[in-house]
Amino acid sequence: MRHFLSLIDYTKEEIKEIIDLAFQIKKETKNRIFKPYLKNYQLAMIFEKSSTRTRVSFEVGINQLGGNGIFLSSRDIQLGRGEPIKDTARVISRMVDMIMIRTFGQERLEEFAKYSKVPVINGLTDKCHPVQLLADLMTMIEYKKFDFDNPQKTVVVYIGDGNNMANSWVILASKLGFNLRVATPKGYEIDEDIKQKALEFAKQSGAKIEFLYDVKEAIKNADVVTTDTWVSMGQEDEKEKRISDFKGFEVNSELMNLAKKDAIFLHCLPAYRGYEVSEEVFEKHSNEIFDEAENRLHAQKGLMVWLMRQLKN
Amino acid sequence: MRHFLSLIDYTKEEIKEIIDLAFQIKKETKNRIFKPYLKNYQLAMIFEKSSTRTRVSFEVGINQLGGNGIFLSSRDIQLGRGEPIKDTARVISRMVDMIMIRTFGQERLEEFAKYSKVPVINGLTDKCHPVQLLADLMTMIEYKKFDFDNPQKTVVVYIGDGNNMANSWVILASKLGFNLRVATPKGYEIDEDIKQKALEFAKQSGAKIEFLYDVKEAIKNADVVTTDTWVSMGQEDEKEKRISDFKGFEVNSELMNLAKKDAIFLHCLPAYRGYEVSEEVFEKHSNEIFDEAENRLHAQKGLMVWLMRQLKN
Amino acid sequence: MRHFLSLIDYTKEEIKEIIDLAFQIKKETKNRIFKPYLKNYQLAMIFEKSSTRTRVSFEVGINQLGGNGIFLSSRDIQLGRGEPIKDTARVISRMVDMIMIRTFGQERLEEFAKYSKVPVINGLTDKCHPVQLLADLMTMIEYKKFDFDNPQKTVVVYIGDGNNMANSWVILASKLGFNLRVATPKGYEIDEDIKQKALEFAKQSGAKIEFLYDVKEAIKNADVVTTDTWVSMGQEDEKEKRISDFKGFEVNSELMNLAKKDAIFLHCLPAYRGYEVSEEVFEKHSNEIFDEAENRLHAQKGLMVWLMRQLKN
Repeated sequence: MRHFLSLIDYTKEEIKEIIDLAFQIKKETKNRIFKPYLKNYQLAMIFEKSSTRTRVSFEVGINQLGGNGIFLSSRDIQLGRGEPIKDTARVISRMVDMIMIRTFGQERLEEFAKYSKVPVINGLTDKCHPVQLLADLMTMIEYKKFDFDNPQKTVVVYIGDGNNMANSWVILASKLGFNLRVATPKGYEIDEDIKQKALEFAKQSGAKIEFLYDVKEAIKNADVVTTDTWVSMGQEDEKEKRISDFKGFEVNSELMNLAKKDAIFLHCLPAYRGYEVSEEVFEKHSNEIFDEAENRLHAQKGLMVWLMRQLKN
Repeated sequence: MRHFLSLIDYTKEEIKEIIDLAFQIKKETKNRIFKPYLKNYQLAMIFEKSSTRTRVSFEVGINQLGGNGIFLSSRDIQLGRGEPIKDTARVISRMVDMIMIRTFGQERLEEFAKYSKVPVINGLTDKCHPVQLLADLMTMIEYKKFDFDNPQKTVVVYIGDGNNMANSWVILASKLGFNLRVATPKGYEIDEDIKQKALEFAKQSGAKIEFLYDVKEAIKNADVVTTDTWVSMGQEDEKEKRISDFKGFEVNSELMNLAKKDAIFLHCLPAYRGYEVSEEVFEKHSNEIFDEAENRLHAQKGLMVWLMRQLKN
Repeated sequence: MRHFLSLIDYTKEEIKEIIDLAFQIKKETKNRIFKPYLKNYQLAMIFEKSSTRTRVSFEVGINQLGGNGIFLSSRDIQLGRGEPIKDTARVISRMVDMIMIRTFGQERLEEFAKYSKVPVINGLTDKCHPVQLLADLMTMIEYKKFDFDNPQKTVVVYIGDGNNMANSWVILASKLGFNLRVATPKGYEIDEDIKQKALEFAKQSGAKIEFLYDVKEAIKNADVVTTDTWVSMGQEDEKEKRISDFKGFEVNSELMNLAKKDAIFLHCLPAYRGYEVSEEVFEKHSNEIFDEAENRLHAQKGLMVWLMRQLKN
């Protein structure tokens, strides 16, 4: 049985299988063909943080596949009253076929998975956000910015906080072999453990991964520019300090002009204009951004079908 | 693509089409015939205020039509964390086929609709509540108090606060051509903009719409009497003042005796006994009131099927 | 029309019918055969307290039966804004086929049922938890600790608070005729009204029901040992006093050694280690406990199908 907790556990071939399946199902969906790939499958969706995209995409996704989603906010379940996570995992996994969790620490997710009898999907942790990266990868491919056979032609630049999105991009590059530059302010570098693992994987894949403090240097010749909020859920107290520390890291038109002329801009949303991205850049690239958001739906459908197929092998 | 934001945008003929469809589907439902009119259709339901009737009727409705409803409270989605409504609209409308919103300002609804790629339904705003009026219209027809071919035979009297329900009745009358008297205390008149628009429409439909301060005068010869709470969601602070200002506006037996003998009484619920309606009047007319509540289900099924059919035309 | 408010209203034969149906559907489910017993049926689930097991089991259950569940927390519906329960009952029961409620007082549930047009299921009240007992009964049968034809061979021992779970065990024993010992601290005895009713039923069934204060005396020769939290939802203020009063009532290995060698241990969850049960006992008996949790799903599917069949008779 496979879980989907982090891209660390996945090979390039497996990621390609999931993406291929996602594109196939997306094509069917666009033609309003809804094959019951997961008829009678039950997906529990546990949210310990609020969510728009993850919630709607998973719930619509499992329904379009013929199954059913059960939305559980931590406010509504006993997890919120202090039940040990290992008990919640053992109970819920007795009743459903798959479980998606959005939670805080990665170790909380891992403990849940350890006690679960069914596959567990990471719907965002403080450490990584792998389902978002599947959607981002689909979008890069659709905009002809990535090819599994020629990954080294792609230059992705991540600008901003060394958070779960930055960690996830580093892992993805290291697995697929594309070039990635991560530009953060000092003190906001990515997770050291992730970095070491990624550099190890990169030796095999040929990925060139660089960590910089100079945004203008980083963005040169970028095919894909991406960023994320400076103040993630749970960091509201640090807001003022962060805004000051991230000065100069806003992706605005001046900065985008240093990237390739046809560079695309991705954002996992929600976006805070005037902070990590300017209104002008955001709206100029809104096609890519909302294609990316929509791809959450398709990517996760591919993932769910893939995970359930593993159980039969 | 048509939205359903206000009855202002609908003609008498279109309203009749929706109601006819609603009656047809109601009849099937009563015989437990559930035709998959909206098989594989996904309805997002966004609630920025609490709800019983709207929530249950939309969710049951879309399911009985073969589709699926996704309940999103603003507590659970990023909208509650300050994401711009235009982004939420663009994301959600990429993933579903229809969106229902209960929100505060009408302009908030309109901005959402402007950015949505799919039809948007008003599930209550501070300005109007058009889905409720569809249910009220069905109930009037069932109790033989309204006929599309002889609208001028009907006298409806709305007693109480000049709120979203009052606004909606005024629009409905102006479109369909029935007689309406609105009795409010001074200072609680309906929206001036709505009033002017309605009086304009009334010239065409022949509706006679009157605004009074004298309840006893207003209720004379009424076929249909209706009211609404004096303290809507969000007005809890004004409660004491309002109760005092609405003195004499309670629909009690003494008042109902001035209406026609066989007059029906409607209430969109929740009802506050001893305020806008007496316990006696409420319970005497509970058949109509709960038929009206049930018609929310049927009316909205008609509406959803109608809206989706527009996309194919 | 039958409701399921308390086992008081059910005969041994009816309980057996529900359990037989539950086992049959469980067997089908385990083979991934999902017969549409309740196709197009709508279940409203109203929660005035938080829930994991009840929520997931009912929602998965109705879906696996071909129907649909609507989750209504009191936060989201007008019930939370003070709408009379009789109005909520009349509205919701016009739109769905069955209603499950988790609430506080049993009288609140009973008033809801009185005004409902469709069957109402008790999903936990302060007085009893009958759906949990159906699951417990299934588990006892699966572990060969209970036989409908030889109920008097079974000894169940309930240790702890004389709460809704204790009340429910007393009613179940009195209906089915097995032996039950309830050991509580002084001051925490079960509901006197329940006790008198049960002792009356016991005359017919032959159940031997004893109430003790001595835990070690109570547990001797037990086939089934069970307990529940000392601090139920809503009693958080009394926590310190209760912990002190329940000293000596923890089900730990020392105590379990006084039961039969092959005794099973049941717990309705959530479990508080170091209070009503030790970590060691809990984990040693986790198979039974999580089979019991899973049986919530199967028992309630049997119950829902049974209730809907009554409407056709």
